[in-house]
Amino acid sequence: MKYISLMGATGSIGIQTLDIIREHPESFRLAAFSAGRNIRLARKIIAEFQPDFVSMQGKDDAEKLKAEFPGIYLSYGGDGLSGVATFERSDIVVNAVVGSVGLKPTLEAIACGKTIALANKETLVTAGHLVMDAAKKNGVALLPVDSEHSAIFQALQGEKAKNIERLIITASGGSFRDRSREELKGVSVEDALNHPNWSMGAKITIDSATMMNKGLEVIEAHWLFNLPYEKIGVLLHRESIIHSMVEFHDSSIIAQLGSPDMRVPIQYALTYPDRLPLSSAKRLDLAEIGKLHFQEMDFERFRCLRFAYDAGKEGGSLPTVLNAANEAAVAAFLDGRIRFLEIEDLIESALNAHVRIANPGLEEILQADLDARNFVHSLLVKRN
Amino acid sequence: MKYISLMGATGSIGIQTLDIIREHPESFRLAAFSAGRNIRLARKIIAEFQPDFVSMQGKDDAEKLKAEFPGIYLSYGGDGLSGVATFERSDIVVNAVVGSVGLKPTLEAIACGKTIALANKETLVTAGHLVMDAAKKNGVALLPVDSEHSAIFQALQGEKAKNIERLIITASGGSFRDRSREELKGVSVEDALNHPNWSMGAKITIDSATMMNKGLEVIEAHWLFNLPYEKIGVLLHRESIIHSMVEFHDSSIIAQLGSPDMRVPIQYALTYPDRLPLSSAKRLDLAEIGKLHFQEMDFERFRCLRFAYDAGKEGGSLPTVLNAANEAAVAAFLDGRIRFLEIEDLIESALNAHVRIANPGLEEILQADLDARNFVHSLLVKRN
Repeated sequence: MKYISLMGATGSIGIQTLDIIREHPESFRLAAFSAGRNIRLARKIIAEFQPDFVSMQGKDDAEKLKAEFPGIYLSYGGDGLSGVATFERSDIVVNAVVGSVGLKPTLEAIACGKTIALANKETLVTAGHLVMDAAKKNGVALLPVDSEHSAIFQALQGEKAKNIERLIITASGGSFRDRSREELKGVSVEDALNHPNWSMGAKITIDSATMMNKGLEVIEAHWLFNLPYEKIGVLLHRESIIHSMVEFHDSSIIAQLGSPDMRVPIQYALTYPDRLPLSSAKRLDLAEIGKLHFQEMDFERFRCLRFAYDAGKEGGSLPTVLNAANEAAVAAFLDGRIRFLEIEDLIESALNAHVRIANPGLEEILQADLDARNFVHSLLVKRN
Repeated sequence: MKYISLMGATGSIGIQTLDIIREHPESFRLAAFSAGRNIRLARKIIAEFQPDFVSMQGKDDAEKLKAEFPGIYLSYGGDGLSGVATFERSDIVVNAVVGSVGLKPTLEAIACGKTIALANKETLVTAGHLVMDAAKKNGVALLPVDSEHSAIFQALQGEKAKNIERLIITASGGSFRDRSREELKGVSVEDALNHPNWSMGAKITIDSATMMNKGLEVIEAHWLFNLPYEKIGVLLHRESIIHSMVEFHDSSIIAQLGSPDMRVPIQYALTYPDRLPLSSAKRLDLAEIGKLHFQEMDFERFRCLRFAYDAGKEGGSLPTVLNAANEAAVAAFLDGRIRFLEIEDLIESALNAHVRIANPGLEEILQADLDARNFVHSLLVKRN
């Protein structure tokens, strides 16, 4: 039996993690979870899974639930999130929150020796060196939940790191794959949220449309698999069937495939190094699909991907700024305050304005993150 | 340093095995080899690799070479082949002969505790139960060299057999993939030898055109991976880029990909469980290829595949008969004695005529093999 702390239970990955726990009551138990503002769903999760510990974003929601479920320990805010991450009974912490808010509790969970199932790529993008150092020091496994990184992780089982020639991360191209830059000028939020293959949260769906998601994944892969950026490539593959690949120096490539279903990588992280059946998953039928397409990535078309490679290679505090500026810009787009292509412009401005710190500690990272957000907001204020 | 015995050095797989040994003189040494009638090539191999022991098919060729290379031990025929298979200094025996003639020396090599790199699928088809039993008893590893089985073997590294849902063996479709059965009636030997993706020996190229090659591979996979036939599927994939796949019960699929190059699986068998660089291999460029195609296998169109599944499932001496009748029929087609579609008819007749032996020993297998060949020859004589 593995006891699970789930950070971000009411989001897309959180809900699918609960599906996996529900499917395997003999293997998993939800010990603790955190949620944001969705008290209705939090209530249902408590009733069904009977966890020991729950944290809500707001104090008011926590107090409401406390009254309804007197037997369960309830907390809220940053302290509550830390409580979920470090909950004593839990063996494994699923980090499924969105954004760099996931960083601090992840470091705390690592310090407590918890296995981390990481769906929150911003954690590694914003402070990969700190997280990986801490994981190494504490002998903690960081298991990827992103479908691409899970694919690479699965492909690497039984293989030696020294034999890796390169990683090939596949990209569907997102909602606007077939549109020119000219055609992107007037796209709406609704258009951008309509991803062709994956049903995901709003932020990651916009990141897919700008290709920043793939950029964040490249930086995440750099840290998770300890490889230089020259050994990490991106390939356009519209069907999202091959989730990613590893090429070895003998030219052999190992790939992981499947119908797009996030429950598969989530479950793999929970069952690793074993697998469990997932009978409700749609089996891949390649004959039915008929064709898989592949195409070079266009770095002019997708400027955010270029930003991410550049920020990753320069390192230091630049990836933190890349990520924070992106979070602020995407939020502004989702709020209807800027146009789609302005997301790129805001990120570029923030990167250009930042004075790079070579080897930032946690405080410097949190400050750089805050500064970048404030910088984007100041540009938005000026603009309006 | 691994010392290698190479059975069938002058054939297609043999020559490519020598390429690998040549590329890694720090890792591999050719200790012994056998060859058929190609004395010119055998002479060059001896001069370059300076093995300790060589066996030719004919006594005359062996004596000629003995005179030229007095420092090397020369032998011939079946005893010579056994000598290569059991050569004391060798750690690993590459079985790259064609046909069921590979069976006896493989069993002898296993009895001596040699690791077997098996390119000779007929060995497992004709007597899989004997070979696998012997390998188990002697604690010997059987490493596949066929690209499909190597792909499955690579995909299974770090995985547990209990989690396998099914194997998906890919098939290019061979030389006549796009022709109807009607169009196959008048095809020539030259047409049949013109394989779209792989440059291989004559027998296996014809087996690809009849799809018997895939049938033999299904039976080989049954033995190598200890799976029932219901868990082994075949998928038409014209580009031969995905060499085969394993689906696990969580719906995740691990595949091995690469440009068609037999040196990759040959080298993997020799370096296993490690890998070595293969700098001369053509790197796979999926963007350049653009599309991969997949299609259901048509068992009416490819009758040999159906024969193979049926013979495999019924088991006993039937796979032996399937293989021997196929070897005799393919030889007759290559000699211009029968038409292409008559290969199928001869195999079907041999299978129908045979009285199945449930659990045949080696002598019964060799007899069933001989009887099936004689039966095909008798039909050929009647016919002319």
